[in-house]
Amino acid sequence: MSTQAPPALTERADALDAADELAPIVDRFTVPDEVIYLDGNSLGALPRHVPAVVADIVERQWGHDLIRSWNDNDWWHAPIRIGDRIGGLVGAAPGQLVAGDSTSANLFKVLAAGCRMRPDRPTIVTDPAGFSTDTYIAQSVARLLDRRLVYAAPHDVLDNGDPAAALSDAAVVAFSHVDYRTGQLWNLPEVTAAAHRAGALACWDLSHSAGAVPVGLDAYDVDLAVGCSYKYLNGGPGAPAYLYVAARHQATFDQPLSGWHGHATPFAMTVDYEPADGIARGRCGTPPMLSMLTLEAALDAFDGVRIEQVRAKSLSLTGLFIDAVDQLVGGDVQVVTPRVPGRRGSQVALRHGQAFQAVTALIARGVIGDFRQPDLMRFGFAAPYLTHRQVVEAAAQLADVLTSGVYDDIAPSATALVT
Amino acid sequence: MSTQAPPALTERADALDAADELAPIVDRFTVPDEVIYLDGNSLGALPRHVPAVVADIVERQWGHDLIRSWNDNDWWHAPIRIGDRIGGLVGAAPGQLVAGDSTSANLFKVLAAGCRMRPDRPTIVTDPAGFSTDTYIAQSVARLLDRRLVYAAPHDVLDNGDPAAALSDAAVVAFSHVDYRTGQLWNLPEVTAAAHRAGALACWDLSHSAGAVPVGLDAYDVDLAVGCSYKYLNGGPGAPAYLYVAARHQATFDQPLSGWHGHATPFAMTVDYEPADGIARGRCGTPPMLSMLTLEAALDAFDGVRIEQVRAKSLSLTGLFIDAVDQLVGGDVQVVTPRVPGRRGSQVALRHGQAFQAVTALIARGVIGDFRQPDLMRFGFAAPYLTHRQVVEAAAQLADVLTSGVYDDIAPSATALVT
Repeated sequence: MSTQAPPALTERADALDAADELAPIVDRFTVPDEVIYLDGNSLGALPRHVPAVVADIVERQWGHDLIRSWNDNDWWHAPIRIGDRIGGLVGAAPGQLVAGDSTSANLFKVLAAGCRMRPDRPTIVTDPAGFSTDTYIAQSVARLLDRRLVYAAPHDVLDNGDPAAALSDAAVVAFSHVDYRTGQLWNLPEVTAAAHRAGALACWDLSHSAGAVPVGLDAYDVDLAVGCSYKYLNGGPGAPAYLYVAARHQATFDQPLSGWHGHATPFAMTVDYEPADGIARGRCGTPPMLSMLTLEAALDAFDGVRIEQVRAKSLSLTGLFIDAVDQLVGGDVQVVTPRVPGRRGSQVALRHGQAFQAVTALIARGVIGDFRQPDLMRFGFAAPYLTHRQVVEAAAQLADVLTSGVYDDIAPSATALVT
Repeated sequence: MSTQAPPALTERADALDAADELAPIVDRFTVPDEVIYLDGNSLGALPRHVPAVVADIVERQWGHDLIRSWNDNDWWHAPIRIGDRIGGLVGAAPGQLVAGDSTSANLFKVLAAGCRMRPDRPTIVTDPAGFSTDTYIAQSVARLLDRRLVYAAPHDVLDNGDPAAALSDAAVVAFSHVDYRTGQLWNLPEVTAAAHRAGALACWDLSHSAGAVPVGLDAYDVDLAVGCSYKYLNGGPGAPAYLYVAARHQATFDQPLSGWHGHATPFAMTVDYEPADGIARGRCGTPPMLSMLTLEAALDAFDGVRIEQVRAKSLSLTGLFIDAVDQLVGGDVQVVTPRVPGRRGSQVALRHGQAFQAVTALIARGVIGDFRQPDLMRFGFAAPYLTHRQVVEAAAQLADVLTSGVYDDIAPSATALVT
């Protein structure tokens, strides 16, 4: 990377870095020197201590201790332990989250269980602009449980602060906390309250907020939630997802992926399914322990960090990036992400007619963001391992790519980069 | 371990080891020197080359390549690649297996899809003595899709070679290939044929046969199958499971865990779910890549090995163990596993009134088997990494434990060891 951001911007960035409370933890992560990594909203970076832990998991726990590890290394309770730790980052008291399966599978569980909790209410409300898998799973649950799917965006379920008509017969209202394309942060407290006033359950997908934005699951009386752990939680590629069931709903939480790990007495191996007490009934089959235990270790990177600190730095990074883009790129791109901090998640999305080519050219320079159909560049800002200086450098690289036209030779591609 | 098997047995074992075609691959695995590991039917041993591969997955693929790995290291297609490799071990041509999720979740998919393929048939037939999670999942699918669950053992669905009445209105007949408790190998060809003659689909759980017993999915026209990869396939603790859908059924395979990885165009992020062509429609959400890629590496331990060789050695090991138990332990235990080789999987189960205590005492000596409620000792025999000499040593240790009464001080426990 040869271009430099203008001195006024780099000086501002350096001052922000000098005052950054989280600066000491940047070194907890390994990111290649030549990379500015703005895709932590797709796959979080590797915490520096994790490879040694993984080696121990593989060589000692699997290779030496073998089957004994289920007891001796307490593999069995890892999903509950991890759930509690993630709970600490999303505002849930212990005993309400459990890790395992994928976000899709967990959404299937909680949506189906939510419909069963509201047997007389015929609809599921969800956002067709939400992440695709959430919509696909809602379609499947609606079909299996004979519900009608109603499409609405989170801001459409409020009508001057009152619940909109769409909620009137909803069993569950299921939204993403942050829009994966635009980075819009939805108003979880208001939407949750509106769902409740209408008699519906509120279910949130926290994939793009957990580890980046305070969520307040308990504080806002959220009923159900799911999320992945491989984005801002840095749990590793495809790391196990999690689900949340508020304590008040657990006794009636009746989910269809009723595997033996969610059974009250799994080793009695009885013929009939009897769900475990508490959040353990959200479990299904044997979880992928290498990925699970790696996630557990990765969460250590948050030790001593408050989510409010992460949020403050994230807003500082995204705000600086928007300013730098305004200044260096100007009208060549449209900032799609809300400029109002309170409505912004931890990413910035920019619209551009050749977004795919521009992102590809940036990646070739080591500035890693990603692309979303049809015309969005997405840049995620993981506060734990980014500096403000990197942010202005990235904006300068983007300006250089767009003004120099280096991307003109890149063919448009239907194959996007993976979230 | 101080006791020794009698010379006649050790000499016989040594002669068998000297003639063992698979002796050269024993060293592909690491098992602690002080351990005789007879629990590969719960968690397979660690292949020696795997730790270095895992380090590469974590440090280079995740840590350095980051999100680019989905394309550059082709993470995306790993479930299909792995499915094809497992397919080679269970007699399935490429394009019919896909790895991911747990056995429970995959059974949910295939049972639900199977019911949808047979909309006019009101029952699901399964074995209440099958592994508990299979029964629990069948209960859930029956409830969701308004079917009746009919319990029958595999040998009960044949009536003098003809399909029994239980099959007459079955949509799907779902059994385990090997009984997890007794080690009985069921007659997959005959039961599958009977299901077909009755108009039902045949679904098999291969968890206790894949990697140990030839299955012949294609040869016997099996319709659907699932299985785990952490037992005889040695994929690591909780390694991703797999599902099989015969090519002839894939176009109508309509499964309810319709996550975006199973979509025809996952990156178009369309609103409506459209399943991918082929076996990819069996995928759900983002898979746990550390566990997934570790499984892929672990399968290299089968390179150059034919499953028929594994089966021959497995029968030699289990046969020798039964002989040694007969000779050294005698009437103190009941051999529950069929003595007829063709009806035996790759384990030997022994009934004893103090089975839990005896297994616990054996484990303390380094002979690792496991226990199943209420009174079974289970010993699994993974041909790739066991020797005949270890088998007779294990039998001698068992005899010593049972005759010396060293287990008398061990309290009975309701907490069994994990499968």
